[in-house]
Amino acid sequence: MRAFLVFLFFFIGNLKPSAVAAQDRYVLVIHGGAGTILKSKITPEQEKRYQESLEQALLAGQAILQTGGKAIDAVEAAVRVLEDNPLFNAGKGAVFTNQGKNELDAAIMNGQNLSAGAVAGVSTIRNPISAARAVMEKSEHVMLSGIGAEQFAKEMGIEMVDPSYFYTPQRWHSLEIIRQRDSLESTKKNQQPVALMETLERKKEKYGTVGAVALDMHGNLAAATSTGGMTNKKWGRIGDAPIIGAGTYANNTTAAVSCTGWGEYFIRLVMAKSICDQMEYGGKTLEEAANQLVMQKLPALGGDGGLIAVDKDGNMVMPFCTEGMYRGYIRQDSLNGPIKKETALYKN
Amino acid sequence: MRAFLVFLFFFIGNLKPSAVAAQDRYVLVIHGGAGTILKSKITPEQEKRYQESLEQALLAGQAILQTGGKAIDAVEAAVRVLEDNPLFNAGKGAVFTNQGKNELDAAIMNGQNLSAGAVAGVSTIRNPISAARAVMEKSEHVMLSGIGAEQFAKEMGIEMVDPSYFYTPQRWHSLEIIRQRDSLESTKKNQQPVALMETLERKKEKYGTVGAVALDMHGNLAAATSTGGMTNKKWGRIGDAPIIGAGTYANNTTAAVSCTGWGEYFIRLVMAKSICDQMEYGGKTLEEAANQLVMQKLPALGGDGGLIAVDKDGNMVMPFCTEGMYRGYIRQDSLNGPIKKETALYKN
Repeated sequence: MRAFLVFLFFFIGNLKPSAVAAQDRYVLVIHGGAGTILKSKITPEQEKRYQESLEQALLAGQAILQTGGKAIDAVEAAVRVLEDNPLFNAGKGAVFTNQGKNELDAAIMNGQNLSAGAVAGVSTIRNPISAARAVMEKSEHVMLSGIGAEQFAKEMGIEMVDPSYFYTPQRWHSLEIIRQRDSLESTKKNQQPVALMETLERKKEKYGTVGAVALDMHGNLAAATSTGGMTNKKWGRIGDAPIIGAGTYANNTTAAVSCTGWGEYFIRLVMAKSICDQMEYGGKTLEEAANQLVMQKLPALGGDGGLIAVDKDGNMVMPFCTEGMYRGYIRQDSLNGPIKKETALYKN
Repeated sequence: MRAFLVFLFFFIGNLKPSAVAAQDRYVLVIHGGAGTILKSKITPEQEKRYQESLEQALLAGQAILQTGGKAIDAVEAAVRVLEDNPLFNAGKGAVFTNQGKNELDAAIMNGQNLSAGAVAGVSTIRNPISAARAVMEKSEHVMLSGIGAEQFAKEMGIEMVDPSYFYTPQRWHSLEIIRQRDSLESTKKNQQPVALMETLERKKEKYGTVGAVALDMHGNLAAATSTGGMTNKKWGRIGDAPIIGAGTYANNTTAAVSCTGWGEYFIRLVMAKSICDQMEYGGKTLEEAANQLVMQKLPALGGDGGLIAVDKDGNMVMPFCTEGMYRGYIRQDSLNGPIKKETALYKN
């Protein structure tokens, strides 16, 4: 009877991710930005391209996780694929600043030991996420910025590129349109504060960021986020993506989180860490914590966006309060169990 | 009898800060950095200068708070005094980078509406804390960096200075000593990683940062932090001071926090926000939360430093796990009650 109960326990346990031994499973969740992503505005061909691109990133991370590799390697690998893809606003495909440059930000965090690395405002590093990882592992710092960060990356043997590598015609076109409209609008209503016009404009646009979170077979969590920021950004603006706690956080005792959205609101809420803290200090589940922050606190403050997260028990969430979010996951919940994989763009 | 009990309640209430109506009191707490601050190494004259300087900052903030002014104005005023004082590593008196420059960081946050502003890596703004406030109030951003942040500050009418304004002979001397030693050490043991040598060196030095937190008569909380960073810093390193959540946080529902210490550890712990979250989600008191983080989690991770904080009920803490911390407070707990004021450098 006792043996039967033990068997029953394991059987039931295997159905519920949170009861499975860490060694038996892995989870990888990714995002490619949240915003005005509507089925009515995207052709079936475009949709297919996005889904294939997300799948490619998932498979790059899964190749590491399914052979017992580390969460930190998987999130870096997945984000590198998204950075190299011009469809997403990170790495190649980054949006242009007001000065016609590409200034990239990225952050990575290892939940095993709370080590973290970030770069902000870099223009010559092909994969900012790998520079962030070098900051984490090969410097005693967490955050490096601008030319200094580029010098460090170069010294560490990270692949450098000419700034022109980041040029894509569609992003340049976006900048030109915004510039033309700003010029028109400032002529028409030069009494209206520039900030307000930018705010209204931003709301119409998609927030471009990419990110990945993973739980590996050793029970380790990791998170990575990379972005080109906002089209037409000025004044050396730094958003939430490279800020540990805001756009990126991972802690083996709670969860790994990567955010995308209107960065300023994610900074003010310290979004990623708040989710972990609601779990650690408030005893909330990942789902409760993420829903409360993304669906209530964020819009209540006036912001929007979304996030992806996976907790230490393999539970995952992908909430967003925008029209859509490029997202996907791949997971295997037991050693010989089925591999589940899904990508999505819209609500439901 | 009932009237007597009501009277008794109010009388007892007035003895205990947490039971006093917000309108009846104000609290201002400041710090000027934590580190190897030992009585044996500081002359009585130096000690007096530090205490007078801290008092000057306290009085600048108090002048605002006692007339019913805002917490956000008080913390800015107190930090400006500390920035202008060459004794502290912020504003005038900032340490030099590896390249012989002064790169200043600052952040400010208003607990009333969670608005926040920060500047990182600026070299021509006399009072970075006022630039951070302009970012908070006059831009739609939270964090601006480098030359872009300086352009913004200039456009906003913030006082600009020539970079030479920040030169002080004692800080230049510190850089020269570190450079000489680095050069000697790298000749002697060029196999040892530079990072390790810097780590050992840092441990001997004081962490220079200044900060202020306040509760005003309207029940509003605010926090401000400003720093020149680390002597000999490289690669555009950004520490915790300008990072909302790490070095600075304020929320009227919990507390206002300003940190000082080994910035990288404060970033990884998201120190300031973690204290607020332990209170909000975990039901801890400010003292319990601050002690757990500063005296346990921080040293357990390998870091050190301290912080100042005041909660919505007027309770305040100034914990540190270094030898000392320049600190002080001024408070009035009831309308006609005594004004309490204290400054300190060492343990106990």
